[in-house]
Amino acid sequence: MTNWVYSFGDGKAEGDATMKNLLGGKGANLAEMSNIGLPVPPGFTITTDVCTYYYANDDTYPDDLNAQVLASLAEVEKTVGARFGDSDNPLLVSVRSGARVSMPGMMDTVLNLGLNDVTVEGLARQSGDARFAYDSYRRFIQMYSDVVLGVDHYNFEEILEILKEEKGYILDTELDADDWKEVAQAFKKTAEEALGYPFPQDVHEQLWGAVNAVFGSWMIDRAKTYRRIHNISGDWGTAVNVQSMVFGNMGETSATGVTFTRDPSTGENAYYGEFLINAQGEDVVAGIRTPQNLTKVAREKASSDKPSMEEAMPVVYGELADVFVKLEAHYRDMQDIEFTVQKGKLWILQTRSGKRTAKAALKIAVDMADDDIITREEAIMRVEPAALDQLLHPTLDPNAKRDVLTIGLPASPGAACGIAVFTADEAEELAKAGKRVILVRQETSPEDIHGMHAAEGILTSRGGMTSHAAVVARGMGRPCVSGAGALRIDMENRVINVLGRRINNHEILTIDGSTGEVMAGEVATIQPELSGDFGKLMGWADKIRDLKVRANAETPLDARTAREFGAEGIGLCRTEHMFFDADRIVNVRHMILAEDMAGRETALAKLLPVQKQDFIDLFNIMRGLPVTVRLLDPPLHEFLPQKQEDFTSVAAAMGSSVEKLKFRADALYETNPMLGHRGCRLGISYPEIYEMQARAIIEAALEVSGSDGDPIVPEIMVPLVGSRKELQILKEKISAVAEGIIAASGAKLDYMVGTMIELPRAALQAGEIANEAEFFSFGTNDLTQTTYGISRDDSANFLDDYIHAGIFEQDPFVSLDQDGVGELIKIAVERGRDTRADIKLGICGEHGGDPASVEFCHGLGLDYVSCSPYRVPIARLAAAQAKLKD
Amino acid sequence: MTNWVYSFGDGKAEGDATMKNLLGGKGANLAEMSNIGLPVPPGFTITTDVCTYYYANDDTYPDDLNAQVLASLAEVEKTVGARFGDSDNPLLVSVRSGARVSMPGMMDTVLNLGLNDVTVEGLARQSGDARFAYDSYRRFIQMYSDVVLGVDHYNFEEILEILKEEKGYILDTELDADDWKEVAQAFKKTAEEALGYPFPQDVHEQLWGAVNAVFGSWMIDRAKTYRRIHNISGDWGTAVNVQSMVFGNMGETSATGVTFTRDPSTGENAYYGEFLINAQGEDVVAGIRTPQNLTKVAREKASSDKPSMEEAMPVVYGELADVFVKLEAHYRDMQDIEFTVQKGKLWILQTRSGKRTAKAALKIAVDMADDDIITREEAIMRVEPAALDQLLHPTLDPNAKRDVLTIGLPASPGAACGIAVFTADEAEELAKAGKRVILVRQETSPEDIHGMHAAEGILTSRGGMTSHAAVVARGMGRPCVSGAGALRIDMENRVINVLGRRINNHEILTIDGSTGEVMAGEVATIQPELSGDFGKLMGWADKIRDLKVRANAETPLDARTAREFGAEGIGLCRTEHMFFDADRIVNVRHMILAEDMAGRETALAKLLPVQKQDFIDLFNIMRGLPVTVRLLDPPLHEFLPQKQEDFTSVAAAMGSSVEKLKFRADALYETNPMLGHRGCRLGISYPEIYEMQARAIIEAALEVSGSDGDPIVPEIMVPLVGSRKELQILKEKISAVAEGIIAASGAKLDYMVGTMIELPRAALQAGEIANEAEFFSFGTNDLTQTTYGISRDDSANFLDDYIHAGIFEQDPFVSLDQDGVGELIKIAVERGRDTRADIKLGICGEHGGDPASVEFCHGLGLDYVSCSPYRVPIARLAAAQAKLKD
Repeated sequence: MTNWVYSFGDGKAEGDATMKNLLGGKGANLAEMSNIGLPVPPGFTITTDVCTYYYANDDTYPDDLNAQVLASLAEVEKTVGARFGDSDNPLLVSVRSGARVSMPGMMDTVLNLGLNDVTVEGLARQSGDARFAYDSYRRFIQMYSDVVLGVDHYNFEEILEILKEEKGYILDTELDADDWKEVAQAFKKTAEEALGYPFPQDVHEQLWGAVNAVFGSWMIDRAKTYRRIHNISGDWGTAVNVQSMVFGNMGETSATGVTFTRDPSTGENAYYGEFLINAQGEDVVAGIRTPQNLTKVAREKASSDKPSMEEAMPVVYGELADVFVKLEAHYRDMQDIEFTVQKGKLWILQTRSGKRTAKAALKIAVDMADDDIITREEAIMRVEPAALDQLLHPTLDPNAKRDVLTIGLPASPGAACGIAVFTADEAEELAKAGKRVILVRQETSPEDIHGMHAAEGILTSRGGMTSHAAVVARGMGRPCVSGAGALRIDMENRVINVLGRRINNHEILTIDGSTGEVMAGEVATIQPELSGDFGKLMGWADKIRDLKVRANAETPLDARTAREFGAEGIGLCRTEHMFFDADRIVNVRHMILAEDMAGRETALAKLLPVQKQDFIDLFNIMRGLPVTVRLLDPPLHEFLPQKQEDFTSVAAAMGSSVEKLKFRADALYETNPMLGHRGCRLGISYPEIYEMQARAIIEAALEVSGSDGDPIVPEIMVPLVGSRKELQILKEKISAVAEGIIAASGAKLDYMVGTMIELPRAALQAGEIANEAEFFSFGTNDLTQTTYGISRDDSANFLDDYIHAGIFEQDPFVSLDQDGVGELIKIAVERGRDTRADIKLGICGEHGGDPASVEFCHGLGLDYVSCSPYRVPIARLAAAQAKLKD
Repeated sequence: MTNWVYSFGDGKAEGDATMKNLLGGKGANLAEMSNIGLPVPPGFTITTDVCTYYYANDDTYPDDLNAQVLASLAEVEKTVGARFGDSDNPLLVSVRSGARVSMPGMMDTVLNLGLNDVTVEGLARQSGDARFAYDSYRRFIQMYSDVVLGVDHYNFEEILEILKEEKGYILDTELDADDWKEVAQAFKKTAEEALGYPFPQDVHEQLWGAVNAVFGSWMIDRAKTYRRIHNISGDWGTAVNVQSMVFGNMGETSATGVTFTRDPSTGENAYYGEFLINAQGEDVVAGIRTPQNLTKVAREKASSDKPSMEEAMPVVYGELADVFVKLEAHYRDMQDIEFTVQKGKLWILQTRSGKRTAKAALKIAVDMADDDIITREEAIMRVEPAALDQLLHPTLDPNAKRDVLTIGLPASPGAACGIAVFTADEAEELAKAGKRVILVRQETSPEDIHGMHAAEGILTSRGGMTSHAAVVARGMGRPCVSGAGALRIDMENRVINVLGRRINNHEILTIDGSTGEVMAGEVATIQPELSGDFGKLMGWADKIRDLKVRANAETPLDARTAREFGAEGIGLCRTEHMFFDADRIVNVRHMILAEDMAGRETALAKLLPVQKQDFIDLFNIMRGLPVTVRLLDPPLHEFLPQKQEDFTSVAAAMGSSVEKLKFRADALYETNPMLGHRGCRLGISYPEIYEMQARAIIEAALEVSGSDGDPIVPEIMVPLVGSRKELQILKEKISAVAEGIIAASGAKLDYMVGTMIELPRAALQAGEIANEAEFFSFGTNDLTQTTYGISRDDSANFLDDYIHAGIFEQDPFVSLDQDGVGELIKIAVERGRDTRADIKLGICGEHGGDPASVEFCHGLGLDYVSCSPYRVPIARLAAAQAKLKD
């Protein structure tokens, strides 16, 4: 005989957690809880095989199903001590769908099934609360009519509104037992009118109606669509769960509560939760009555005058504590538990792994591993890498009031507060004077870097998650909200208009770079503190992962931060970021605006010593670790003067006229600078620039290597290569410079020459390019831009529309587009390795700090990922998780 | 016995044209000419096998080689009637290298070998011209010393200069026989000093020295580099050709000439050429003496008083005419022939297919096919498709003087001349007043279209081969030079500065869009005329090709031109080009600047009827042919007002304020518009725009189909798709509009919805996208931009550097990058067809008119290419050639 029905409840079950395919997810979990001895309200699961049978046999059931259901129901009645349909002591049940995986497309729950005109009075007597009984009855009629019989719920809501109006009530709580009885009668009448037959009074008819509805809901359009999108087979079928109702509002020996086995906020190993005597579950959540503490310690800490559960219900509390121990031991994780006490009897309604803060997740994981409840590998898997951001940056006090003006892109995590200033110069000036400032710009450029550094946070109205503002802010660990398109920033009058409101110069703003919120006024922030747990978990992760983690950094400060966060080298040093200091920008401009090579070489000769010193500093900090230096990348016009006085000073330095400079500057204008004269194209046109940089790198490496200790192996990276020939030409020039210097020095120095793969053509031609390149670094920012044809600086204009329409699941500049960009990376990895088996491979786009992207890189067997310093811990953890998932 | 040496000459040979691998290209051709009975100066070829032997055996020769050479030399002596090294009647020979393919890296020719102190006197006597003999001798000494013995030629040039100075001569022609004798003696001495041994007097030593030098030159670095670049195997080896010298300057019965079997300028079937009596080949070319006509008819036509060869040397002329007939019959093409008459004996030195104008190529090919000399297929292969441009556009008179200011990019073919004007409005105004104008802009934008139309030609200082100016000019058939970076265009003062020169407002300029030349003043132009031959050849091509050819066109004028040129439909109608007319731009701006959907819809309602009328016109012209309409593509800010008065008029139309509009316009600004909010991204953000366009297309198609005749099947094309979901969403909206209109009309209408593949991601995701798309049109302009990461508008800045460095063989916006972009197209074709076997495939980038790219498309089995109207004939011919090459 096929077993169509599986019983569970109160300490035992026929099924278990492994039987998800047959019992559905919910049914299997209810069975599991029962098996480990938890007092689960008893019930039974009708299997998914019945669903399959139902559809294979013209919506009919197996012959023996009814008998099995009745037998299981009888068991439930026996356990609960109540009978289904009994006029004095009626058993009430819930009926729920439950497929192999959770499917929101299907039938909702029907509660309180088993109530009718007779049993409702029995419930009233049993509970001693007629109001509760009739309220439950009218809810059941509405829910059953809606979900099972297809009578729209608005039919009922109207009746309730009319009655309240007639009686002069405002709140539902004003209705008494008679009122609810009247409502229930009216509901029944309405259902009958809509249906053309009376609302079913036979409780078995009610039950089979609900079962039919669950099986029927498997094939409704919404469910089918959901399955298509989520790749769920229609053959799987759903199970039906019938479970006895329990009530926490049956007098002073009844109660209900929500608890955690550990503190979900701090991770402390102490029971944590709230309960209410003589109440229903909703009451705890609704906040109408103030819930009581679970433990005495917690009550004392909170100085509450209401007794804790430990004090008020010591016996049941003892049982609950036993359940906690059992549950943590069984599920090996902190649990979030819903319970009800019905007339002194404890029932566990649900348990699941509890949501927690990053801080708590870290502490719980490390504590459990230290206590041998879980392995270190499991501890690593328990912490969401992205959540580490909360531990590294200030966060907003969750209890503080927020006056949200608009929401932009969460470009760099952390909260910051300060007065609004509109120029980098003023930001620096006021910061020096001790003010906290938020730098507000339409978009930032390399010229704003000193102001960004001085500011507490950065706010822009344009630009995406990898815009200049976002990338630089993340590198510095400064909170940043970018692309807040609702801001109308009037630079001239230094005022922001935002959706009808106005923020003046020097008014206080708060931004949350983790959520994108922009707020008026000051919102309290909480400073991060790194516990020993953090270092411990990171250490475990480091032992496991294969992927190395480097940082994108160029300043000594960033490099030091990166090293402190565990970076194993620099994966991307953007040399152009070194060009903006006041003492060198004039020479940079001279170089760019020079009309011939002689002029350029004069300027380059002045830049050489400062550039060399930059590398000496960097190599010293990164001693013993690899440092990848990218040669000049951005279009030259990014460095150009904007102001008249800047033109004048450059003209003076060059011995040229302002007019000539302006013409030359104008000639450098580009329609689409991202696709313009930049990257290695500069190296082809002006080889002397790359030669100067190569010289600075090699001379610095020799000097640092020579002093003492570990040698430096600089990796010289040529950006924006699209063909082998480009790299061939430039590598020859770089090598000629390097070999010359090394030979002259008499010392030995190893160095590598490689390239960014950041153009689709480079990915396709990787086999050819690898003939020249000793390493590839995937520049996934630019590769995303070109593969998608989307400018990161302009994407904010339509990103929302795209996410809203479901075209992007996520911003592709945040999490790597594995289908498109990912395929190009895969192609490049394969072809690159075919040509040069030991080619060194890494990524240095912003995706290097995104856990999903890190996992993708691990899957491809890359050597390293490189990300902004503050993301290094995230990448380390994500890399370890990726390895463990393998 | 291995045959190491192959003789040829004077009507017979041991080898033939098929033996290129053994005899080299030159040797095989000499043999071939001999075989067909031509009087070729006799000689012999030492085979490539000897070269192989030489390198395999430590630079030694086969034992029997010397005997074979001597035997062949004896044959030559017999044929010529002279003896190698003979003091009275010396045989002189040339020695040349000759590999399987022509290799400029190798040894040059040595002429006059066999001269020494004794034989030079014999030559003087034989020729009766001592000056010639000693001049030949000193030339031989210099050439042999340089090429064979490695004495640098400057050693000799100095001696000649000193002697001329001493004697007070200016020109070489002033030297007499004694002078040359003195020079020859001095040369010999110099050679001896440099060599440390005397210049070889033994003619056999001379010969073997030259043979060694040829074989040795196979392995010099220059040759190896050339082979590496051109993929030529080092194993092939070279042959050595030894051939008797003949002289046309041995008196009045000697002569030399260069002739064509047909007129290379017009293609007329008449002998064409020049000759000189008692002269060397160089004399004809050098132009010191005026050459005489070949035929009497030509002489009379030229009113020359010097007799033609037909008159002066009737017998030899008759022999030459026989040769012409033989050669055309044998090579089946018009030949370019060099001949020499030595003492009444005709020698043919060289014959090859003659270079010719496009007009001549066309006429010759058609004539020869009509005369059954060649097949129609061969005729098709004989005309260079790109050369057809010359037949369709005005060209510069090749004899007119040119004052070239600078050379830009040849953006749209044809020559034009007119006064320089700096704004589109002025261009239109002056053109209406009957002036011919050249529109000069830094770059053009859609707002300039009326001015471009009014102008004779367009000149820009920025932008590449697919910049706005280039694309629009080609579409209109207007000559255009773009990206002439040396021009400093001062718009304010309306003046051009170019390399120190100045062109003022309204000064006359001439441009040649086929070469990129920009010239001061007027240069005479020649208007094109299309002969019946053109139509005939096109007709033959049409019967052969598989690829359809469509045109990119949107105006009725362009569409009509395209149809006249044989376009088989429209492959790309850029709807945005329809938005710039004065009567609609206000509404377009209203649509863009509207703050909400209601405002946009008001504006769209006004645009609908005009857009619909556009399509009605287009469909009427293209009746019976497919028309692909691309929905709005460019970023909206391209349409925005620039001038205050335009803002005012738009504000009035919208009932809004100029200030608000300016803020909105500012918000639309993009850093990289090419990668910005454009293409289908507009359709996602503002679906009402695409819905209006779909409505206009479908209503127009119904109206035109309804009237009579062939139905219209519009192909609605969604641009810039990067994922299936985008197209899915937009296709649903388009189809909903279309189905609604069709149902309401009660008529039947077929239409298609498809997409551009113009992003790398779209190519990779083509399998997914093809689930939605009924056709793909490869937008190779944008695909090139994104695959290479190069903006076509900015590429002019470094294009020259890239071509110069050998990174680009050609501008990738002109000829498709088959390795990179081509691979993406291949991937998309495969994946698209896997999903939808009958998917319609075409390309609509500018590459559609490039012959190499057309061949690539044919190879992929695309259905059609689409190009600008004036390129349609080129594409038709190229498509036929591609098929024939298969």
